This record gives sequence, C-alpha cells and structure tokens, in this order.
Amino acid sequence: MYKLLVVGTVAFDAIETPFGKTDKILGGSGTFIGLAAAQFGVKTGVVSIVGGDFPKSYLDMMNERGINTDGVEIVKEGKTFFWSGKYHNNMNSRDTLVTELNVLADFTPVVTKEFKDSEIVMLGNLHPLVQKSVLDQMNVVPKLVILDTMNFWMNSALEDLYKVLKRVDVITINDEEALQLSGEYSLVNAAEKIHKMGPKYVVIKKGEHGALLFNEGKMFFAPALPLSQVFDPTGAGDTFAGGFSGYLAKTKDLSFENMKNAIFYGSNLASFCVEKFGTLRMEDLKTKEVQLRLEAFKELTQLDIELY
Amino acid sequence: MYKLLVVGTVAFDAIETPFGKTDKILGGSGTFIGLAAAQFGVKTGVVSIVGGDFPKSYLDMMNERGINTDGVEIVKEGKTFFWSGKYHNNMNSRDTLVTELNVLADFTPVVTKEFKDSEIVMLGNLHPLVQKSVLDQMNVVPKLVILDTMNFWMNSALEDLYKVLKRVDVITINDEEALQLSGEYSLVNAAEKIHKMGPKYVVIKKGEHGALLFNEGKMFFAPALPLSQVFDPTGAGDTFAGGFSGYLAKTKDLSFENMKNAIFYGSNLASFCVEKFGTLRMEDLKTKEVQLRLEAFKELTQLDIELY
Repeated sequence: MYKLLVVGTVAFDAIETPFGKTDKILGGSGTFIGLAAAQFGVKTGVVSIVGGDFPKSYLDMMNERGINTDGVEIVKEGKTFFWSGKYHNNMNSRDTLVTELNVLADFTPVVTKEFKDSEIVMLGNLHPLVQKSVLDQMNVVPKLVILDTMNFWMNSALEDLYKVLKRVDVITINDEEALQLSGEYSLVNAAEKIHKMGPKYVVIKKGEHGALLFNEGKMFFAPALPLSQVFDPTGAGDTFAGGFSGYLAKTKDLSFENMKNAIFYGSNLASFCVEKFGTLRMEDLKTKEVQLRLEAFKELTQLDIELY
Repeated sequence: MYKLLVVGTVAFDAIETPFGKTDKILGGSGTFIGLAAAQFGVKTGVVSIVGGDFPKSYLDMMNERGINTDGVEIVKEGKTFFWSGKYHNNMNSRDTLVTELNVLADFTPVVTKEFKDSEIVMLGNLHPLVQKSVLDQMNVVPKLVILDTMNFWMNSALEDLYKVLKRVDVITINDEEALQLSGEYSLVNAAEKIHKMGPKYVVIKKGEHGALLFNEGKMFFAPALPLSQVFDPTGAGDTFAGGFSGYLAKTKDLSFENMKNAIFYGSNLASFCVEKFGTLRMEDLKTKEVQLRLEAFKELTQLDIELY
C-alpha cells in the first residue's frame, strides 16, 4: 500500500438546500478527501490549518478512521475557515453566501516527517503556491501527484498555477473550468491543451454527468449514479478525488487501466457523499454498502455487446 | 429480422452553426430515423408528407439505402415542412429562426399495406394524434412501440399525449422534457412517473451527456462519445432513436439486456450524425466505420473491476 499525503482545507460549512439548512458543520476539501481515502484503509496524512474554535471531536473522528492529522496546524487564537452556501432547486447551481478565510489567509503548510516520503500526493483545491510548497517539502519526487483546482485560482493566480501544473501527473478539474483553462469549446480539445501544461492525465468532473479520464489520446468515462434525491452536493468533487487517490494508493498500480477503476470508485463514493448534509454520510459509510453500490455501478454501464 | 415502421417528418432544414451555414437541405425526424435504421439493413418504411418542391433525388437516395418511401405522401401543390435554426457557440443551445408547417399542417398519415404488420413501430416527434393514427392503422398490435416527443406537445396537446402514451412500450425523451412531463426534479423519479403513464421503458436523452435507459427499477447508461468538434447537432436525437429501433429490429430481441446494446448503438450512430451538416454524414457512413467506433465506445466505458 502507498502512503497518501493530502493538503486541503479543514473547515466549517453552513449549507442550505431545498431539503434543509445546517449551522456550522464539518467541511473542507482535506476533510472530504481524507474521509473518502479512509474507505480503503490507506495510510493518509492531512496537512491543513484550523483555529482554536475547531472542535477536537472532529479531529478525533478523523483519527479514528485512520487519518493522521498531525499536519493540521491549530492556531489557538485564530478562527477556522468558514464557507456558507445555498443550493438552488435543481442542485446544479449554488450561491456563496459567506467566505471567511480566517486562519487560511496566512496558511503555510508543513508536511510532517512521517509523510515526506508519501508515494502519492493529493493537492486539494488551494492557492497554487500552497500546493507547490507541499511538493517542495517532499524528500523524494512522489510517484504520483494529483492536483485539484478551480476557476478562482485561474482568475487570481494563473502564472502560479501554470508553474505547479508542470510538476503534476493528474489534474482533476470540472468541465467549465477545463474549458476556461484551455480556452477551448470541447472537452477533448481542452484535455489535449491541459496535457501540454504538464499533467499526463486529465480528469474532467461533470458533476451529475460523470467524469472523463484522458491520457495521451485515450479516454475513459465513468457516469455518476443517477439518484432519486441529491440531498447536499457539498464535497462530492473532493470525495471523488479522495476515492480516486485512495484507490490508487491501496492498489499501488498507477497504470491507465487501473485509473479507470479509480475514477469508477471515486464516482461510487461521491454518490454516497450527497445523500446527507456535509460529511455525515461519509462518516458512517460501511465497506459492504460501497461494494453493493459498486455492483449497481457496473450494472449501469457494463454490457456484453457484439458487432452486428 | 423485424419490419420497422417509422412515422416522422421528411423536411427541409436551413442550419447555421459557428462552422458555417446551409441553404435548404434535407432534414426531418423521419429522414434521420430512417437513415440510422438503414445501417442495420432492416426493412424500414417511412410514413410522412412532402410538397411538390421536394426533390425526387432525396427520395431516391433513401430508396437506394433500402428505405421504403411509399408511405411518403407528395402534395404536388403544397410546400414541404421547413425549419431553420441557429446554434450558439457551445452547441448546447439554439434559436429557431423559422418554422413553416406547410403540408404538415394537414397531415393524415397513411400506413401502406406492406407495413401494417410491422413488428416495431417508431413514432417520431409529431402531434400525438398523428402518432395515435398510425397505431390505429396496424393490423396487429406491434411487438414494440417506441415514441419520441418534445415539450411543444406537452404544452399544446398534453391530453392527447397521455392517451397515446398508454399504448407505448418505449418513450425517448430529453432530460428537461422528462422533468417537465413528470413534474419531478430528478431523472430517476421522472422515469418512475413516466412508467406509470404507460411506457415500460423510458429512455432519457442527455445530448452530449449520453442517454439513460430505465425499466422497472433497472437502469443502464450509455455515454455520448466525447468529440473534439460537434459540427451540427441537428438530427442527433432522431439518429439515436433510429439506431435504437433499427438495432432491435435487426436482432429481434426486445429484452432489457438487448436494449442496452440498442442504446449503445444509438449513441454510436448519433456521434457520426453531428460530424457534418444535416444528413450528409449518415448518407456516406460505412459499416466498417460504425464497427470501429463501436470499439472506441467500448474502450470508453468497459472495464474489468474487482472489489477491493
């Protein structure tokens, strides 16, 4: 099994959907990625930052699931990053109501000694310079570097993003952002251009429409499981990325063929994440449930077709 | 091999895309469905109506491909149905510039004797009463009735649509229209409600995001092939429906398992349709090309995954 290092936010979210509303609950890209990877029992270390207001019970919960949080700096006098958002009826769009960076404004990530030799590094959605700093601290070049990013950094730190992309093997990015980053109109052309920026593998997340994996002219597609109800989409993309990287760490196979399985597993885990508010579903998710739904996923796409 | 009866428009289209602009060219749901089904060499009869302005060469072209057009009424003194539209940059939306019903305004379909015993009937997008009239003319109840419709008929002839739906086995409908017809927010729930209106099988077309097949709690998904360029999306949905019904007619197997193959083939053919203006690509499409791309489709979705 490979060691997995994750950098991302550990944070508070307050969420409103057509089904209800939460106070401040546990959120953050590092949290969702870690919880998804924990499903595979891999040795995962999370690098992040929280304030003195962050409940120890949240860190305990992560530790119980095998997530090492020694890399989560606690700024006693500071406040934890807080995001609040409201989803519209169709769940495909949302409004951000509040973004308080708080301790995240001055975040300098510190990779603990134990994870400096991680074979897989998952760089969650953060400033490209924070992502780069994590790579700079590794003892050896990781076997696989995965980076997630969003349009915010393309608009505000594009040159820094270009620099870190040169050191990245896999980028995970949503469809609109892939078009923005590449200036193209089709995802196929976008993937080709993004390849040239560094990543050999381009994973394009299409939300409820699934995910595409591109690698030097090869393509693979994993659908999202059609659900009768999406309760809260928050964290689905990070759960997907955590499932993807966790599966690769578990299987120690970084081939294109195995990445197909990895995005399948990522989609599978994301389909659970959206069933409850925040991290709730991922916290109580059982291996047996994951396996059963994986069978449903196979039923959804696999067939035995002959040429006519 | 089953006999396939198609009712739909045979028409003129004028299309503008970011890549160019056409004068009046061959179009219509019956035309696209027929050309797709022709790929399987099934005995296909098209019921439609055109004006005296419709070139005989178009009918000759269809006949050469084995499509029986005896059911296409020619109104010498009338004008052919004409639609004109303009696609936007991302090809996902379009404006209708002109709709001239012309001879279609008084269309009473007549099923020729030869096709009154067709085992499969494909009711292309037309007024529900026209669709119903075709069913009324059959000598025996067909083994499979497939119906395509759109929001226009939901808005203007909903009660008639409900009536014909009771006699339909498979409905093909796009995602937004499925939500509208059912009043639901998720496609899973929409399919369930539409089942109750009659169709045992619900096929939801999601354009570039593929298609879903629902049958009494079972689901299957076929993606659309990601293309570097979509030249003209006109007719893609009808080509999908033609590929679906043509494959079923060819294989004479109406099971859910075989319908999976049918929507795979439908998606495959639709991916060709969009490569050139109007029917041009479908007219010169070779079996070898279809088979090669089917392999690409399999590569795109098929994998050999094990439980971890």
